[in-house]
Amino acid sequence: MKKIMKNFTCVNDIENLQNAVKEAIDVKKNPFAWDTLGKNKTMLLVFFDSSLRTRLSTQKAAMNLGMNVIVLDINHGAWKLETERGVVMDGDKTEHILEAIPVMGSYCDIIGVRSFARFESREYDYNETILNQFIKYSGKPVVSMEAATRHPLQSFADLITIEEHKKTAKPKVVLTWAPHPRALPQAVPNSFAEWMNATDYDFVITHPEGYELAPEFVGKAKVEYNQRKAFEGADFIYAKNWSAYAGDSYGKILSKDRAWTVDTEKMALTNNAYFMHCLPVRRNMIVTDDVIESPQSIVILEAANRVVSAQTVIKRMLEAM
Amino acid sequence: MKKIMKNFTCVNDIENLQNAVKEAIDVKKNPFAWDTLGKNKTMLLVFFDSSLRTRLSTQKAAMNLGMNVIVLDINHGAWKLETERGVVMDGDKTEHILEAIPVMGSYCDIIGVRSFARFESREYDYNETILNQFIKYSGKPVVSMEAATRHPLQSFADLITIEEHKKTAKPKVVLTWAPHPRALPQAVPNSFAEWMNATDYDFVITHPEGYELAPEFVGKAKVEYNQRKAFEGADFIYAKNWSAYAGDSYGKILSKDRAWTVDTEKMALTNNAYFMHCLPVRRNMIVTDDVIESPQSIVILEAANRVVSAQTVIKRMLEAM
Amino acid sequence: MKKIMKNFTCVNDIENLQNAVKEAIDVKKNPFAWDTLGKNKTMLLVFFDSSLRTRLSTQKAAMNLGMNVIVLDINHGAWKLETERGVVMDGDKTEHILEAIPVMGSYCDIIGVRSFARFESREYDYNETILNQFIKYSGKPVVSMEAATRHPLQSFADLITIEEHKKTAKPKVVLTWAPHPRALPQAVPNSFAEWMNATDYDFVITHPEGYELAPEFVGKAKVEYNQRKAFEGADFIYAKNWSAYAGDSYGKILSKDRAWTVDTEKMALTNNAYFMHCLPVRRNMIVTDDVIESPQSIVILEAANRVVSAQTVIKRMLEAM
Repeated sequence: MKKIMKNFTCVNDIENLQNAVKEAIDVKKNPFAWDTLGKNKTMLLVFFDSSLRTRLSTQKAAMNLGMNVIVLDINHGAWKLETERGVVMDGDKTEHILEAIPVMGSYCDIIGVRSFARFESREYDYNETILNQFIKYSGKPVVSMEAATRHPLQSFADLITIEEHKKTAKPKVVLTWAPHPRALPQAVPNSFAEWMNATDYDFVITHPEGYELAPEFVGKAKVEYNQRKAFEGADFIYAKNWSAYAGDSYGKILSKDRAWTVDTEKMALTNNAYFMHCLPVRRNMIVTDDVIESPQSIVILEAANRVVSAQTVIKRMLEAM
Repeated sequence: MKKIMKNFTCVNDIENLQNAVKEAIDVKKNPFAWDTLGKNKTMLLVFFDSSLRTRLSTQKAAMNLGMNVIVLDINHGAWKLETERGVVMDGDKTEHILEAIPVMGSYCDIIGVRSFARFESREYDYNETILNQFIKYSGKPVVSMEAATRHPLQSFADLITIEEHKKTAKPKVVLTWAPHPRALPQAVPNSFAEWMNATDYDFVITHPEGYELAPEFVGKAKVEYNQRKAFEGADFIYAKNWSAYAGDSYGKILSKDRAWTVDTEKMALTNNAYFMHCLPVRRNMIVTDDVIESPQSIVILEAANRVVSAQTVIKRMLEAM
Repeated sequence: MKKIMKNFTCVNDIENLQNAVKEAIDVKKNPFAWDTLGKNKTMLLVFFDSSLRTRLSTQKAAMNLGMNVIVLDINHGAWKLETERGVVMDGDKTEHILEAIPVMGSYCDIIGVRSFARFESREYDYNETILNQFIKYSGKPVVSMEAATRHPLQSFADLITIEEHKKTAKPKVVLTWAPHPRALPQAVPNSFAEWMNATDYDFVITHPEGYELAPEFVGKAKVEYNQRKAFEGADFIYAKNWSAYAGDSYGKILSKDRAWTVDTEKMALTNNAYFMHCLPVRRNMIVTDDVIESPQSIVILEAANRVVSAQTVIKRMLEAM
């Protein structure tokens, strides 16, 4: 029996990962087999931040299930939400989140939210303040379309992609930090680690010292500071940049060292590993042209699986209604 | 027999208000009972100004009726429409409204328009220049999604909400001005007054001197400059800020006096009144946290009824085709 | 037997123009006769540039065929795509087109693209770099919604409009340059010329010296530098501004001479010609109020036919799947 899915924000919201992957494969084979399940149901997608893959794939997923879809882009500058109670709202914020969220909830059946880490306060980000307010006040099932600390639709798509490509029961999967010109959130690596730790894969994280992820996300993963050593025998290389998590360096760039760029020579250390990345990717910073264009690169298939993960999640929510 | 609704811009576009409310209650109970009525019909929503509730609720309403929906955001800066005939268009306006509107009309079956007062000229605003050009040139039924002087979908939702909550046949309804940091249009209070005047409620408007609404909207309402006196025995408190209407002060802020903020102490003067506001609302300017979070606050239900009012109006338009 | 349409970017993508026009007339008469053809198919519309008619009419066309539609606006400033291979992406471009395009392709069944000439390099523009990358990498049929050198959905609608209005088998059609305050691409006149040259009409192009279009688009057309002479006996006047094509003056404004504005006096030289323009049009620069408001002006009908041309093209693509 399936777990009834109230919200989808992290790996724990899926009770049995193996069953979920199996269901996802079914969804991928027959995307329109449930095309009346969402009849007269409305999916509202709320974007506080920009998006390409998530925007398109989540719309597609909901439409495959016969839902109506409404997209709402909340422009940072134009439409500011007050979050503190007790404030005299005489400034630039025109609406309180305590009104805005239940109103949005009243116009839909499922609500997707994208809201990145702001890097103003680690506590604020890691408390998932925005996402949790949607859960608390919308009155509707909430799907995280990437929040401050996790990107679960991406991680689920990543897991599906690995399951489709793995050649051994317990592949070696390596999450590697790589350089980037701007400070990026830890949501994707946190989330990927969380999902990999929920499998029985041989899971390794490699990054320069100082880039340690939060302990609750590292979990049982092996941390290896020597990237080359980490790559040895790997079946999957999952590259991603992130900014520092630790203490005072939270949200900061500690290194742009291109010695960490994934290239052909390093990929030769692996067990003919597949190359993965959530996209968008900075070529020749994160990964060289050669590697991302090689037959072992599965980044486009991985992105295509974003429809599959989203549709599986939304399907479960609809079935529980 | 229902009146055939050509356009929906004010209370007069609904012949029998009691029947309309009754129909709205039916729509609310069975939102999908007419889900094929709009098949192969397209609703175009044109926004000259920003919107949250109207944008979402009108889309939802049209989708509930099985319509296709297209949303067009006309960015203020980027896409300027010339409205004067005879002008040599060698400046920053790229298209004349005499072409733009019939073209938009040719791509849809019903057209919704949002265009706020500009405060450049009271005559221009109160002539409803933009809205009337859509009516004149689009060739399609026009729904006002808030125009310069009225917000009829809001007022209809307000009426439905009052009818759902009233405990006496002729409740005392008080529209009260409240302070706000920016100059706001009179559309919501004008429109609310117009709809209340079409009922047999005991309707009172209270505001500081100088904030008189246009006489055609005040109508038969009682105007009371003493807010406390106005609140006595009220069944519904409808708070809203607006800027001045009169003469040279048109569109100006005459007061930000927080003595007019709706608080618990003032609500205690009422007959355990419900609190209403169209949203978005500035907390602790318009109303205190305590009042808006109290059990008597029905602002979220009021917002939810925006789907009901919009769906009832669009349903009538579709039935008349 | 119809040609299977892989992409739609120019007149050559339609094998038999007469059949296509006949089919378009059928589509116009019965727009919903194929309203299940696009069931569970998704049309993705990607806009690199702003749009009114194309945005609305292409959505409408796809919806008429029962498709799901997703609109993606790629904001110029916010989301820059790298197009050169081998670049170290450490600047302001966050994604490479080699990833972005196949990802977009993976979320839809047909992809529409709008991308104007940039005027930075005539070679870059006339190579249709962006459009061709979509064709090469998206893996899906591509519909040009105006590219750097052509606007085929407009030209097809123009042809339909002429066929509906022509009073002789081989009408005289005159494409006339007219003044405009900004530098505009040659896409519309190029494309119109290409489509007119594919008919047996008497086709004349008139413009000031220096405004010659590329020879491959001029084709067999007669070029007449005397506008009045060109207008003599014309059945259709098609007005449009464009910037210079030739050599160093590429993308430049050589004249804003309002002696070239289409007015009543010049229209009197014609055979009671219909007036056409793709819109948006600058009144009293391109054409006087009198002419565009005259009974002979068919600009609104022409714009309405944009749904017909788009629906005919998308219908053919769906039928070929």
